[in-house]
Amino acid sequence: MTTPPVVGVIGIGAMGLAIAKNLLSRGHLPLVRDVRREAEDEARELGMEIASSPAALADRVDLVLVVVVNAAEVEAVLFGADGVAAGRTRRATVMVCSTIAPEAVIGCAERLRALGIDLIDAPISGGPARACAGTMSMMLAGDARRIAEFDAILTCMANRRFIISERVGDGARIKLVNNLLAGINLVAAAEAFALGERMGLDPRRIYEVICESSGDSWVFQDRMGRVLEDDFGPRARVPILTKDVGLATRMADGVGAATPLGRAALARLEQTVAEGYAGLDDAAVIKTYRP
Amino acid sequence: MTTPPVVGVIGIGAMGLAIAKNLLSRGHLPLVRDVRREAEDEARELGMEIASSPAALADRVDLVLVVVVNAAEVEAVLFGADGVAAGRTRRATVMVCSTIAPEAVIGCAERLRALGIDLIDAPISGGPARACAGTMSMMLAGDARRIAEFDAILTCMANRRFIISERVGDGARIKLVNNLLAGINLVAAAEAFALGERMGLDPRRIYEVICESSGDSWVFQDRMGRVLEDDFGPRARVPILTKDVGLATRMADGVGAATPLGRAALARLEQTVAEGYAGLDDAAVIKTYRP
Repeated sequence: MTTPPVVGVIGIGAMGLAIAKNLLSRGHLPLVRDVRREAEDEARELGMEIASSPAALADRVDLVLVVVVNAAEVEAVLFGADGVAAGRTRRATVMVCSTIAPEAVIGCAERLRALGIDLIDAPISGGPARACAGTMSMMLAGDARRIAEFDAILTCMANRRFIISERVGDGARIKLVNNLLAGINLVAAAEAFALGERMGLDPRRIYEVICESSGDSWVFQDRMGRVLEDDFGPRARVPILTKDVGLATRMADGVGAATPLGRAALARLEQTVAEGYAGLDDAAVIKTYRP
Repeated sequence: MTTPPVVGVIGIGAMGLAIAKNLLSRGHLPLVRDVRREAEDEARELGMEIASSPAALADRVDLVLVVVVNAAEVEAVLFGADGVAAGRTRRATVMVCSTIAPEAVIGCAERLRALGIDLIDAPISGGPARACAGTMSMMLAGDARRIAEFDAILTCMANRRFIISERVGDGARIKLVNNLLAGINLVAAAEAFALGERMGLDPRRIYEVICESSGDSWVFQDRMGRVLEDDFGPRARVPILTKDVGLATRMADGVGAATPLGRAALARLEQTVAEGYAGLDDAAVIKTYRP
């Protein structure tokens, strides 16, 4: 490809908008689309062009990034009225960045393939700040030549790119395995931290010791750091990881794999939502452990 | 203290012997003691002097390190026949490095105090290799002046020393909180890794992606690295962490703290022992997850 690819972003929530901002700052002038008018207004003010529908967007770009919340939304933007599949040119490659079940992304890939459209399974991780800086991570599965074709743009978006396999679905699979683990490690961190508090230990000392000991984890350092500051302002709200751990345990059920810790973590995340903390950062799971 | 303190080590299993070797290599000529004749023979061959009993050892040293396996053994070496408490000089300070329940170490401290002997609550972490190199970590609780008095020797033993508080029991408490978390993170790592294997993902790719993503933990990197090499030779055998997670959940029960993930992890560790893997490294918990 001699000219840089034209990129469209469908779904400009926290992650999608951050990705679009990053592309804009690097001169890529992304075309964007969202069902929420206020999100489109914000993007317009930043200097982005708004497409009138997913189909209209797909007709004008080389690469469509789908960054919506769940499988139902992915399906809607791809196959709904004026969806990507209804476009006339069918030359754009679709990259699904949402965290959804492997069967869902496989199903989308098959339907698009029948229309001559390629799909890359490309879940992302790292949060809006890293997405905006181009330092998020990305797990890529699909046709190797197609992925290679977009290497320059992927390099702009994610400084950590993992080529998982050529099998669409493996991106979703490894993302769910990772998020299952992040979810369990988060609930575990809260359970242990709250136990230490209840034993009368100094919270800062607990944090300091665990960060340097065998109980350390990425999620412990990150989320318990917020707990120490009593800062539950949402970076990632509780329902997001709850959804992902639920998807992971259902994926495991589908192959007869046991997930006793995943189930216990899911129950605690659901309890966190039920106790009214859905609008807070997922570090708020510790509130369910406190007396 | 103008002359370096004389140190004795009671319990020269994997950790105790590694500590004694480290002290020997730094010219401290530790006096040692174990109930197992073969352990004492090994120490003698290394050039260490063997005491005839815990009491005899305590009479000749400034600091007694207790590095036995559990609370019953701690009690036996302190208060059994020819135990430390039966010594004549009673000038040595006792440092309990074993991972035991807070009430157990508090009980020992009270009984020793009545005899004029000080106890420092000092659980250790890091495994034999780090103990031998003097790079293990140590969580210290007890009289601050007494701890400071032995600063030079503690610096030789552990390059990471955490002064938790002046309250004996807090060393045990924070150690159990850490090991609870390490135990949950280990079982979680095995659960997620085995799920990834079952989904047909390349194990090396799983390892690489998780180590760089939000599911990362110290124990994942360490133990799943062994799983990748199919190396279950024991560094820490399954029953050790099983014991610690059991102690931690019982400590939590004592204050009415919920530990749903701790209980789920404990059940899986116990299952690992029940399935015949007690002699293997605790990474073997993954064997219970494989088809």
